[in-house]
Amino acid sequence: MSYEANVRKVVPYVPGEQPKVTNLIKLNTNENPYPPSPLVLKALKDMEEKIERLKLYPDPTCEKLIDAIAKAYKVDKEKIFVGVGSDDVLAMAFLAFFNSDKQVLFPDITYSFYDVWADLYRIPYKQIPLKSDFTIEPSDYFIDNGGVVIANPNAPTGEALALDKVEEIIKNNPDVVVIVDEAYVDFGGVSVLPLIERYENLLVVQTFSKSRSMAGMRIGYAFGNPKLIKYLSDVKFSFNSYTMNATSLELGAAAVSDKEYFDKTRNMVIKTREWTKGELKRLGFTFADSKTNFIFAKSDKLPGKVIFDELRARNIIVRRWDKERINDYLRISIGTDEEMQELIKALEEILK
Amino acid sequence: MSYEANVRKVVPYVPGEQPKVTNLIKLNTNENPYPPSPLVLKALKDMEEKIERLKLYPDPTCEKLIDAIAKAYKVDKEKIFVGVGSDDVLAMAFLAFFNSDKQVLFPDITYSFYDVWADLYRIPYKQIPLKSDFTIEPSDYFIDNGGVVIANPNAPTGEALALDKVEEIIKNNPDVVVIVDEAYVDFGGVSVLPLIERYENLLVVQTFSKSRSMAGMRIGYAFGNPKLIKYLSDVKFSFNSYTMNATSLELGAAAVSDKEYFDKTRNMVIKTREWTKGELKRLGFTFADSKTNFIFAKSDKLPGKVIFDELRARNIIVRRWDKERINDYLRISIGTDEEMQELIKALEEILK
Repeated sequence: MSYEANVRKVVPYVPGEQPKVTNLIKLNTNENPYPPSPLVLKALKDMEEKIERLKLYPDPTCEKLIDAIAKAYKVDKEKIFVGVGSDDVLAMAFLAFFNSDKQVLFPDITYSFYDVWADLYRIPYKQIPLKSDFTIEPSDYFIDNGGVVIANPNAPTGEALALDKVEEIIKNNPDVVVIVDEAYVDFGGVSVLPLIERYENLLVVQTFSKSRSMAGMRIGYAFGNPKLIKYLSDVKFSFNSYTMNATSLELGAAAVSDKEYFDKTRNMVIKTREWTKGELKRLGFTFADSKTNFIFAKSDKLPGKVIFDELRARNIIVRRWDKERINDYLRISIGTDEEMQELIKALEEILK
Repeated sequence: MSYEANVRKVVPYVPGEQPKVTNLIKLNTNENPYPPSPLVLKALKDMEEKIERLKLYPDPTCEKLIDAIAKAYKVDKEKIFVGVGSDDVLAMAFLAFFNSDKQVLFPDITYSFYDVWADLYRIPYKQIPLKSDFTIEPSDYFIDNGGVVIANPNAPTGEALALDKVEEIIKNNPDVVVIVDEAYVDFGGVSVLPLIERYENLLVVQTFSKSRSMAGMRIGYAFGNPKLIKYLSDVKFSFNSYTMNATSLELGAAAVSDKEYFDKTRNMVIKTREWTKGELKRLGFTFADSKTNFIFAKSDKLPGKVIFDELRARNIIVRRWDKERINDYLRISIGTDEEMQELIKALEEILK
């Protein structure tokens, strides 16, 4: 025997490539094409004065960041949880809330970390097929289960489920925690945040990585009933007392306080997305009416893999999965206008 | 029924107080009294130029930080793992390696997060009593078990176990992972790091929070056989693809590259500790011959709780536990010379 017999053997999630070369048009991990708010640079500069404080542990209550989120969303502090990206928040939530013998439900085509977390913690789960148009049928989630996870808008499809349909899912699952992962909600979706006042089993998860241009800082957050948040915090404090370092607290608080910049840049992304939709349509692509900062599109002329490789050869990276039902689709993040013009030019060449 | 039936209910670890007032002598969480290396400030300033890059995800392979650690310790990159403080590294290691039905062994008096992690993951464990002089008896760990965790030097006792005795524990446990938590090793202990070449089941965990004055940045790391590190990384990548944010990677790499400053400041801490030992002895305290940046001391005159409260009333915070065998002890972190002089002056007043 060896120690290996008792190792937890897992198949990790594979994140999109983070290439170290710089002359690329990077449309593969749904990052924001615009830099963080100028207030973030100011907060970074202000840290120089406070550099000595790095010798001390950061505030474990994350007060500064939570206060800033509370203010931005007009939500009480005790309804807010923060973590190292929404991945950290979701990983903690799976560990905290999904402890029955029943299956946790989520779509077959969705964020591909959900089944990885379930496997990691040995949580039973069932992947519910999306309908043929890649939309979610709420009544599919009315069966006996151990929890529900819905990404809304969904990734990689970009499909948004209407608020009343999400509420149907929550309402029909009072005995389990329902997680609504709203990583992309700021680009045109509608948040279920107000529903935390009515449903004590609802956890709404969001992130600084997309609409706030802060993927590099790894900040995610969740809203829920204070009791639900307390359960989640207890698990977090049983894992790591200080997950958020001093720079995350300072730069994160600065980022979320700049509503004007946030609105300006997300509207720029939305505008570029709508232009891109028109161009992709012209080139014969089909896609859902994305409410996110990406478009999940399929060509009527060439297989997804061929287009993917041809784009890569032209220094443009998008994302695709070798997975049933979606292997001909490309998930294209929305970059700057110039980047999307380059993309369209390349696609024109590839498809002609 | 409600969702609460399936919540993982835990009793979290309680970290030492991080008071928000500033006119305190803070000797309660074993932080370094000196600021981080000047190279850390330089790295922070350099980030201003790169602020736009915060819109992108950080490098998931943590190459820059791991390369810097590899260089500082002359260890191959594939033998290194990094995390959000050594707590994150240890939490992942418990999850990855302790999956048998047998009990994981650690001392009854040690870092009080070990039993919290075991409870969180429902890992069976047995706390082995330290000897009456608070030292570890290696042969106590030669029984059938599911894993072993040893803090060396141990906390909160400050006792270091000799290298050959640690090796005895590792050698006698070839079928389980042995974790040696060396958070405090840089203040006079001897690391088992070279033993990773001989024992494939040995994981050595260290941190930037103590000897590198970087508690605020949350950086921990581990050394082990490449296969062991791969298992640990797989679990980490099944939890969160990007645990280390961009500032941790940059500032961490800068900190670990400054050997001169590291040696200078740790020697200052050691010198102050030895002076403090002499003073505490003079005042009638008993304590182990600490090889850490704290002293675990007991007065022959007053109960620990009384001294603790009296120090607090004088704006000096140390740490104590309401726990059998150690409730009369104070764990006193080593501050600057001036801070320790203030402490001794206060103790003289309290004890007279």
